[in-house]
Amino acid sequence: MKNNNLVDLGEFGLISRIANAARSGRGVVTGIGDDAAVTALTSGMQLLTSTDMLLEDVHFRRCWHDPYRLGRKSLAINISDIAAMGGIPRWATLSLAIPADMPLDFLDEFTRGFLAMAGEHGVALIGGDTCSSKQGLVISVTIIGEQLPELILRRSGARPGDEIWVTGTLGDAAMGLKLVERGEGEEYLLNRLLDPIPRTTAGIVLAGSGQVTAMIDVSDGILGDFGHIAELSGVGGIIRLADLPLSPQFRAAAAGLPAFPHALALSGGEDYELCFTAHPDGREKIIALMKKCGIEAAPVGIVTSSPEVAVLDANGQPFHQSHQGFNHFVS
Amino acid sequence: MKNNNLVDLGEFGLISRIANAARSGRGVVTGIGDDAAVTALTSGMQLLTSTDMLLEDVHFRRCWHDPYRLGRKSLAINISDIAAMGGIPRWATLSLAIPADMPLDFLDEFTRGFLAMAGEHGVALIGGDTCSSKQGLVISVTIIGEQLPELILRRSGARPGDEIWVTGTLGDAAMGLKLVERGEGEEYLLNRLLDPIPRTTAGIVLAGSGQVTAMIDVSDGILGDFGHIAELSGVGGIIRLADLPLSPQFRAAAAGLPAFPHALALSGGEDYELCFTAHPDGREKIIALMKKCGIEAAPVGIVTSSPEVAVLDANGQPFHQSHQGFNHFVS
Repeated sequence: MKNNNLVDLGEFGLISRIANAARSGRGVVTGIGDDAAVTALTSGMQLLTSTDMLLEDVHFRRCWHDPYRLGRKSLAINISDIAAMGGIPRWATLSLAIPADMPLDFLDEFTRGFLAMAGEHGVALIGGDTCSSKQGLVISVTIIGEQLPELILRRSGARPGDEIWVTGTLGDAAMGLKLVERGEGEEYLLNRLLDPIPRTTAGIVLAGSGQVTAMIDVSDGILGDFGHIAELSGVGGIIRLADLPLSPQFRAAAAGLPAFPHALALSGGEDYELCFTAHPDGREKIIALMKKCGIEAAPVGIVTSSPEVAVLDANGQPFHQSHQGFNHFVS
Repeated sequence: MKNNNLVDLGEFGLISRIANAARSGRGVVTGIGDDAAVTALTSGMQLLTSTDMLLEDVHFRRCWHDPYRLGRKSLAINISDIAAMGGIPRWATLSLAIPADMPLDFLDEFTRGFLAMAGEHGVALIGGDTCSSKQGLVISVTIIGEQLPELILRRSGARPGDEIWVTGTLGDAAMGLKLVERGEGEEYLLNRLLDPIPRTTAGIVLAGSGQVTAMIDVSDGILGDFGHIAELSGVGGIIRLADLPLSPQFRAAAAGLPAFPHALALSGGEDYELCFTAHPDGREKIIALMKKCGIEAAPVGIVTSSPEVAVLDANGQPFHQSHQGFNHFVS
């Protein structure tokens, strides 16, 4: 058997191929190969579970996304959800529905990328499912993490007077998408779109800092995602447009556009940065802790008791835009 | 907003609709609505994790499968994997990729079925993902269960001389599929196909019995699935064709066929019964325990030290067939 295509390899061959590439990890008692994986939680910790599904031509296009970075991103966006709770990512399952004509090289590269991301963040692949798809590739990942109950950060703890923070820079992935749609390519921005880095360490450090009152990852744009914090915390907020952290590459790309693309930074999506709230007294400590993690974090607004989330421009005037983040089923 | 279709409802509306229908469950600290669900494992137990993906026109057809039973089955086949480890099912995630024109009624009925199955087996829905599909419905479920480490039953513990057991009856779902493909309908057999009942209680009782050396759920036919036990235990086995438990409905449907369909019972798939091995000394205890669970269990063969799995007919002669269970990508 040559094993150079999926039909020769078969389902169990493919599972073996992935299982052989996966290494065991902390807490894994029985990994891939039984009816269910057996894992052991660290004593005293609670479980964190999240899941994401990616569909070809809905979430990604094979003509843009090389399989290695697609594998990385499939796991990264899940790890980001654990980071958003201040959790430690531990174990993942990976289900793939695969078009019968898909080259095995694509799957090997995808798996290599997935497992590289797993290794970088201490995640073990413990199970999954493979089946044939009559249409495009479907990727479904579930991640399990853990954390001490008292350190877990939810969306619901923001208090009026807290500052609104964000890590890294915003809008890079959305700008990258704009470029890739035009067939242009600026490496940094494209990489921010195709190979996001989940803020695992920052999330854990923020959870341990005792300063943070609420946290979320920015996947649909800070305006929409802070909106979730506001809704669940029963608060509102003011976001200062001029304070949104932007990369030099974003600014350079923006210079070529007819108008400055504030909307990409506010609600462009796929930033996978952390947005969190903290009492102003914690400002110096947070900046110092984030510096130790090798990333920047910036206060970009303030939590209010009003139920609304407003954006103010550089002159302190309300900034309006219609689009409030990506919403499936709504055009 | 009328909320009578998916476009009006939108992604967040759909999530709310499902979340509102889901009830909390044991060990659920924070359910649907944050970046990750927070759950608490029972002290001293280990985690069991499994996942399955179902694709329209690969695993099910909407013209056969009503949404209520499709919702039930989507979770049931996952619960069955936890049962196969002797585990207690606890929490599930549900991801759906949904065609934009899908009636909301279908999704409501699907959710009602999923949650009914969840309620019957003590499972809480703790999270998921929804997105739009350009093609058919895609369902991805991940289940998390728990069990004391010393009670978990794997595929790898079978020893030569052990008896091979199976719960319930075999081949009903495969016969049901044959009927539904012909447009015929025998209610019992169709229900075995469309609404399988995972053997949760039997699995937990067998785990606690101290009698069972290995266990698996029969999803691809007992021949192939006992083959997994044999492979991971480094043993072989003999399965006695005449001892395979068959329902009266299966026998009645078989009477109308040109030849007796042994292959449906041996490797027809989707039985979702438990196949397990145990020392012959435990026979009476096992029968008594299964009776308490309200199900039958029957010894159907013997574990051997030879590496092969053989099937013997009623005369003790080798029975041959080519098809050894369903394998994706292989026609």
